[in-house]
Amino acid sequence: MGFLSAAFFPNTPFTPVTALSMVHTENRLRELGITLPPAPKAAANYVPVQSSGDLLFLSGHLPMLEDGSLMTGSIGSVQNLDHGYAAARQCGLNLIATLQTELGGDLDRVEQIVKLFGIVQSSNDFHEQHKVLNGCSDLMKEVFGEERGLHARSAIGTNSLPLDISVEVEAIVRVKPLN
Amino acid sequence: MGFLSAAFFPNTPFTPVTALSMVHTENRLRELGITLPPAPKAAANYVPVQSSGDLLFLSGHLPMLEDGSLMTGSIGSVQNLDHGYAAARQCGLNLIATLQTELGGDLDRVEQIVKLFGIVQSSNDFHEQHKVLNGCSDLMKEVFGEERGLHARSAIGTNSLPLDISVEVEAIVRVKPLN
Amino acid sequence: MGFLSAAFFPNTPFTPVTALSMVHTENRLRELGITLPPAPKAAANYVPVQSSGDLLFLSGHLPMLEDGSLMTGSIGSVQNLDHGYAAARQCGLNLIATLQTELGGDLDRVEQIVKLFGIVQSSNDFHEQHKVLNGCSDLMKEVFGEERGLHARSAIGTNSLPLDISVEVEAIVRVKPLN
Repeated sequence: MGFLSAAFFPNTPFTPVTALSMVHTENRLRELGITLPPAPKAAANYVPVQSSGDLLFLSGHLPMLEDGSLMTGSIGSVQNLDHGYAAARQCGLNLIATLQTELGGDLDRVEQIVKLFGIVQSSNDFHEQHKVLNGCSDLMKEVFGEERGLHARSAIGTNSLPLDISVEVEAIVRVKPLN
Repeated sequence: MGFLSAAFFPNTPFTPVTALSMVHTENRLRELGITLPPAPKAAANYVPVQSSGDLLFLSGHLPMLEDGSLMTGSIGSVQNLDHGYAAARQCGLNLIATLQTELGGDLDRVEQIVKLFGIVQSSNDFHEQHKVLNGCSDLMKEVFGEERGLHARSAIGTNSLPLDISVEVEAIVRVKPLN
Repeated sequence: MGFLSAAFFPNTPFTPVTALSMVHTENRLRELGITLPPAPKAAANYVPVQSSGDLLFLSGHLPMLEDGSLMTGSIGSVQNLDHGYAAARQCGLNLIATLQTELGGDLDRVEQIVKLFGIVQSSNDFHEQHKVLNGCSDLMKEVFGEERGLHARSAIGTNSLPLDISVEVEAIVRVKPLN
């Protein structure tokens, strides 16, 4: 349709770039077969995301599944590394759902995943929190690509997390301003 | 001078906005019956707050009472949720005291509480760190109101904190520049 | 002296400031007898540092020695405070190595160490994480001086860290733009 418009109105600056790019990341989600969970809602006197300039500060997100249930259990005792990796990825899907809602449905406005901080509920002798967090880092690269998706990161363990969740991840994301 | 201007130009709406707004948040503290503890001081080679552009990065603050004593003990074993909530609120009071000092006594220069990160000393089976942190989040909303006080937040547990404190909270706050 | 030089050699482009300042921090490292370890490399789908505007967000850095080995063990049980202090300092050296690489070899472009967040692998009854983190804070002051090196900081404990490391430290640093 954009092509036809250009043919009929050759003097019109033909730049359907915006329209195309507006669905680029969403198309990528489809290609990857990813369905985002519902965006998390504020449960108390705080919000899933707060902006400051071109930075979005995202709250610690939970590994919530589409049906609202949580991925729980300490890694290294109750659960294993695979479960942790999947939980970190699920935290990432929830972060992306929050971004999509915050950005009015247009994930192409994500300019850079700047920073992830991930906390893994761990037994005292489990020391592969970095491999758990790869579940979230790999997702960011898949969805946003090597340039926009590549972030700084910290991964730590802890003896306990809210609601017994296996992993919690917060993020700092830089976005493009609305034109 | 403002008085003279108003006298000479009676039709000019004379709004001593600065003077009024300068005590707004402090009045709110009084309405709430809140007395701030003394602002924490640097105890080593770091400072309670460092600024960068319009953002203030506040160090992890302790639940220090007015007399300098600390609220201590792990939540879920030595202490309960109510103690944790009160300790998180106390961390918040110390954060606000630091802000007040940093901003030359004018808390109205706080534009947005952007982000809180709270760590709760917890037993392995305590999983309500989010309810503990509400003690700080609720305070921010009470003092700064729904718009300026609403922040992104992460709440996690840990097996140990400095000086056996029950809760530690750090913050990112956006401020208005001095006119 | 600068003034005299400029007066006597008016045609000499008088800008020794840049050249001098470019080696100032590196000279300081030499004076302190500090050899930086090799800059850490990305091990997965994340990077040691990601920039946003004038801020650098540095990933959680490990206490890696020059030979690539890690300082490990929980503080308070397997290891003591001195080991923790040394490990925190080693994290700091790795952070500085990352900064040096990111800034093209010129640490004078570091304008401010804005924020450190340090996590200490701790036994349940160890509560001196702040004294452990002084190992990193003291280093920043030594290398960058009282003004540029003075940062906000949070220090917490945890029951477990990746690869059994004793300490992990992440940082936010403000840098001068390239001229």
